[in-house]
Amino acid sequence: MGEQKVSIGLIQTSSSKNPKDNLYQQMGLIREAAEKGAQIICLQELFNTTYFCVDYDEANFDWAEPLDGALVKSLSGLAKELKIVLVAPFFEKRAKGIYHNSLVVIDADGSVLGSYRKMHIPDDPGFYEKYYFTPGDEETGFKVFDTAYGKIGTLICWDQWYPEAARITALKGADILFYPTAIGTLATEGKQEAREYQDAWETIQRSHAIANGCYVASVNRVGKESGSKFWGGSFVAGPFGQILNKAGSKEEILVTEIDLGEIDKQRKAWPFFRDRRIELYKPILKRIDD
Amino acid sequence: MGEQKVSIGLIQTSSSKNPKDNLYQQMGLIREAAEKGAQIICLQELFNTTYFCVDYDEANFDWAEPLDGALVKSLSGLAKELKIVLVAPFFEKRAKGIYHNSLVVIDADGSVLGSYRKMHIPDDPGFYEKYYFTPGDEETGFKVFDTAYGKIGTLICWDQWYPEAARITALKGADILFYPTAIGTLATEGKQEAREYQDAWETIQRSHAIANGCYVASVNRVGKESGSKFWGGSFVAGPFGQILNKAGSKEEILVTEIDLGEIDKQRKAWPFFRDRRIELYKPILKRIDD
Repeated sequence: MGEQKVSIGLIQTSSSKNPKDNLYQQMGLIREAAEKGAQIICLQELFNTTYFCVDYDEANFDWAEPLDGALVKSLSGLAKELKIVLVAPFFEKRAKGIYHNSLVVIDADGSVLGSYRKMHIPDDPGFYEKYYFTPGDEETGFKVFDTAYGKIGTLICWDQWYPEAARITALKGADILFYPTAIGTLATEGKQEAREYQDAWETIQRSHAIANGCYVASVNRVGKESGSKFWGGSFVAGPFGQILNKAGSKEEILVTEIDLGEIDKQRKAWPFFRDRRIELYKPILKRIDD
Repeated sequence: MGEQKVSIGLIQTSSSKNPKDNLYQQMGLIREAAEKGAQIICLQELFNTTYFCVDYDEANFDWAEPLDGALVKSLSGLAKELKIVLVAPFFEKRAKGIYHNSLVVIDADGSVLGSYRKMHIPDDPGFYEKYYFTPGDEETGFKVFDTAYGKIGTLICWDQWYPEAARITALKGADILFYPTAIGTLATEGKQEAREYQDAWETIQRSHAIANGCYVASVNRVGKESGSKFWGGSFVAGPFGQILNKAGSKEEILVTEIDLGEIDKQRKAWPFFRDRRIELYKPILKRIDD
């Protein structure tokens, strides 16, 4: 396989308390990214709201949208107009009492290819996600989407700490793993912690590119929201984990041209997939091997 | 759990074509590491020979030693004298026609705790390991050893590219993952490649520390051997992937004091183990999910 260029756009921004404002702002940024040549555009986790999981508030459930609602319709129309593939993460209301931290993948003709529901749900001070989100289940599963511009896999934030999630998605054929994210530090945490956390966050995601010989594109939000400070630092890593492009800590549209043909080259040079000992990996399915 | 300090010694050196000379040299370096306070000492992959897999040569099989031979007895005596735990990787002759890339773990009283046989075997230009080594099997498996100074897991070189190997070993209770290694560049490869390779190599191993909240200690050889140049760069990473100590590209004894009590702290702050979706990881057992 020869060159197979595709341009990725990551939209790193801040959010207000008004979902409609956020949607309009993001639609403008999507347009801007497309003008810069982006073909696959990925928005940050829960793109049209603040990161509301900072505390317990029943009122926040009213921000959830169905998969076939007005939000997805607006984005679908925009994707079709701009001929872009769009990865749009939002708070999904699946049924009364069942809510997910989801994303929808819209193809360049505006059709909805499908959705992914976050599989690993965190729950830590300032990140009370288990209160809001039912985890993705076997039915929805780990997902790969065959889009107009390439085969992409999608995972969400906390999923990024799990090599299993990256591996399974890559084995399904993902050439690019997208990680929309909302990660930052709390007011009580200092600069040293912020540096260490961000370094670990970047390192583990780069390792998924290395282990699987694929691209990784991670989008994080920025700005302060009731005590949390999101660090931005969205990036694209190549199939040996090299950082190809990286945003700072401010609002930014990060457009990166990549060559999917590099994946085949990388996996021939470093044939990790060839040597996996699949017959001996069963203990992976244990909680702890005690 | 409070503090639980232990001192790790990594011996990064070059090797000659004379296994006996190499053994004597390494025994001197082990003594030196112990004098510097090292309690668990790990030698580089195939420590008493050159990295002979650079080409196909039947004569090299004569360098193999049995698990209960003179080599292990010498090391056992030394470990007992110095009251150190020793991780010693060598070319094992298990039976006529069955050879492994193995390591033996010797406890601080000189007793042999057991052995580990490399599970993932590479085979690339200059690294013809599939010719020499039968892979470790289910019987020997992934291993953890409860030593006088801590519970350690052992893996060897190419294993380091596989998150599954690190995960399984950590789930078995390893507080430190040791990776004896022989990795470098070929004469045909330039400085840019050397930098990229070493960066990917360090990154994937740091990611095992992060994903599993444990320490990682990696030992690589140095020097030129018939066209290959080994890059050294042995290091110890903490349970969030932070580099705690790192060797250059010359011979070096790297002694690092670590606190095993940090593991419990790390896993409480970043509880990745809590949220693993073990019921959905079965596709890990596939070669490719096509």
